[in-house]
Amino acid sequence: MGGKFNSVIVRVGGEIWIKKSWTRRWYLRRLARNIKAVLQYHNVAYSKMIRRDGRILLRTSEPLEAAERLSRVFGVSSVSAALETTAELDMIVKECLSLAGRMLSRGDAFAVKCRRVGEHPYTSQEVCRVVGRKVLEEFAARRVSVDLDNPDVRLGVEVRGELGFVFSDVIGGVGGFPLGVQGRVVGLLSGGLDSAVACWLVMKRGCLVAPLYLDCAPFTDESTTEKAVEVARVLSDWAIGFPWRLHMVKYGKSLKKIVEGAPRRLTCILCKRMMYRVAERIADKAGAEGLVTGEAIGEQASQTLQNLRVLDRAAVSYPVLRPLLGFDKAETERLARKIGTYTVSARSVRGCDAVPYKPATKAKLEEVVEAENGLNIEKMVERCARELMVVDL
Amino acid sequence: MGGKFNSVIVRVGGEIWIKKSWTRRWYLRRLARNIKAVLQYHNVAYSKMIRRDGRILLRTSEPLEAAERLSRVFGVSSVSAALETTAELDMIVKECLSLAGRMLSRGDAFAVKCRRVGEHPYTSQEVCRVVGRKVLEEFAARRVSVDLDNPDVRLGVEVRGELGFVFSDVIGGVGGFPLGVQGRVVGLLSGGLDSAVACWLVMKRGCLVAPLYLDCAPFTDESTTEKAVEVARVLSDWAIGFPWRLHMVKYGKSLKKIVEGAPRRLTCILCKRMMYRVAERIADKAGAEGLVTGEAIGEQASQTLQNLRVLDRAAVSYPVLRPLLGFDKAETERLARKIGTYTVSARSVRGCDAVPYKPATKAKLEEVVEAENGLNIEKMVERCARELMVVDL
Repeated sequence: MGGKFNSVIVRVGGEIWIKKSWTRRWYLRRLARNIKAVLQYHNVAYSKMIRRDGRILLRTSEPLEAAERLSRVFGVSSVSAALETTAELDMIVKECLSLAGRMLSRGDAFAVKCRRVGEHPYTSQEVCRVVGRKVLEEFAARRVSVDLDNPDVRLGVEVRGELGFVFSDVIGGVGGFPLGVQGRVVGLLSGGLDSAVACWLVMKRGCLVAPLYLDCAPFTDESTTEKAVEVARVLSDWAIGFPWRLHMVKYGKSLKKIVEGAPRRLTCILCKRMMYRVAERIADKAGAEGLVTGEAIGEQASQTLQNLRVLDRAAVSYPVLRPLLGFDKAETERLARKIGTYTVSARSVRGCDAVPYKPATKAKLEEVVEAENGLNIEKMVERCARELMVVDL
Repeated sequence: MGGKFNSVIVRVGGEIWIKKSWTRRWYLRRLARNIKAVLQYHNVAYSKMIRRDGRILLRTSEPLEAAERLSRVFGVSSVSAALETTAELDMIVKECLSLAGRMLSRGDAFAVKCRRVGEHPYTSQEVCRVVGRKVLEEFAARRVSVDLDNPDVRLGVEVRGELGFVFSDVIGGVGGFPLGVQGRVVGLLSGGLDSAVACWLVMKRGCLVAPLYLDCAPFTDESTTEKAVEVARVLSDWAIGFPWRLHMVKYGKSLKKIVEGAPRRLTCILCKRMMYRVAERIADKAGAEGLVTGEAIGEQASQTLQNLRVLDRAAVSYPVLRPLLGFDKAETERLARKIGTYTVSARSVRGCDAVPYKPATKAKLEEVVEAENGLNIEKMVERCARELMVVDL
């Protein structure tokens, strides 16, 4: 008789398939490597991994855990724990019956779907028809029926060359591109909701992130730093197989100079511009290609369109990537829950004491530059870069 | 006896409520003005509109159409067609019974929810209890029951001061901030999927968009221009009450010079840098604060992280806002369907003949600048800006 699941079908994100062949091959190699790293990290044993026609196929004694883990690997569009058999129709039918026997309850409706690549003496439609008929016969006593649109149980068949797979559940993957197919960015991580989600979104598109936390103590307290460290740790779960080190900079003295030496209403803008500049220094060292921030248009006073323009001019060698520009707070929260940063990020902390009561919402570049002329920006950036601490998490 | 719906409850996006009071008041005024413009545009009559405790309340003889239209106004989190009555419990119960009578079928489960602001001789819980009990009594013959978690029919009650509202359906709104609370941006619109969604996302966050289409003919044909015009028209439906004019620039001659006068592998990057520069000129004229593009990391060869960095350096006075940076293609498509641009954008056209077989994925700024030195960039931008055509749609 048929057996239990012994494999996992990993389906690769559709966007990878429209790449030219050399790019696609490279992306798939990267994805396979990332998958191996994740399985190894979680001690999920597997005996074989092959790439075949848009799938990565895994033979493993822990298919359920493997499927769960791999659904959270960037570049994966979906996964199924499956039973591997041969491409012989008899074998496929046998295993489908075995699976159906385990899944179907009295009165259930089921559907059969088949996808096939290669030369076979049957079509996909024939597989569905034969399996459907046999299941109806075999489990007539359970009064099962066919419902293609809204079944209680799905029976899936995938045939790839000489291999056949039978499965039921399809777990949605996280999508995107395999981590590492793009270059590196410096991610400004505050510990709050937005910056973590922003970093994750560029990771999803393949970028390696070097997280940077600017410690504003004494304007913030230790709880903020703890949050940032914990958030960075959660994000590291999405970067298994890659070095992940938190860059920390003591930033309080610089912020103090801004608070004391420039108009209060400009504090946040001057602070952010400083942060960009420090991040650019770190980017130089880290060989990065851009900065990532969690700014969303209009979310905070410093994030009005006009202020974003003033902020942007502080970054002179790197683009400021702001993947949350068009996000509502509720959308960011939803994503943070999926990522796993929500609980930490939403934890209430003292907040930054340097924020003025009425921050400028429409700062002018000239007034900002003038205010900066009164500060020794170059020296402040210099000191921050010197005091960089890189922490393995 | 109770009557039919005569009003609409418009619930305002949560993010507006965490703004400071002066910002909030301004946003709400803007939202009310935008709502009036939409109703007027669609000839939906209303006799009264009041703002009250987080709601905009509308008295209208066309509540269903009004609700549908207003669910697509930026800044609205949800809407309900409702029956307006007084805050007297008797009246509320009476109208709930009338509504329940129209909605409840045999065997249905229902739930009552109440939200209340103001001083009343009852609590929200009491409203739910009384209404629930009366409905159970009145429709006992239909064998109705209460199910708070998964009801077939929802009865909603909102009490605002002396006003009471009874409703059933809650239509999700589009969220975001009222259009116009942020400044203006120039949106680079190609007619394709991404750029339209990018423009919509910044509109959702309150920005006015001045759409700009760069016509690459003879490298593209008229079908591309038609697409861009149609997409701009669909987007204009989201900007009712605001001027909406498509900026069109004949760009083919410039592109020809790039194709002929610079290494082919750099064509797309040089083309995009030119487009940014032209957009900056338009931004100067339009009093804009930024440029918006549909770039997503790694989606196309010109959108690798490294290339984005090279592109970014071409925009010298405005930030390039790229709300789709972290989007997968499938996510962009989903949003395009909701916006209404999908059908037009997905229409297949000839595409751009200038795209080389193997475009550079890792361009270096130095080589790009060197290539540009061989072209008369300044003059090209000048000509484009001179040939600007502004079209009312």
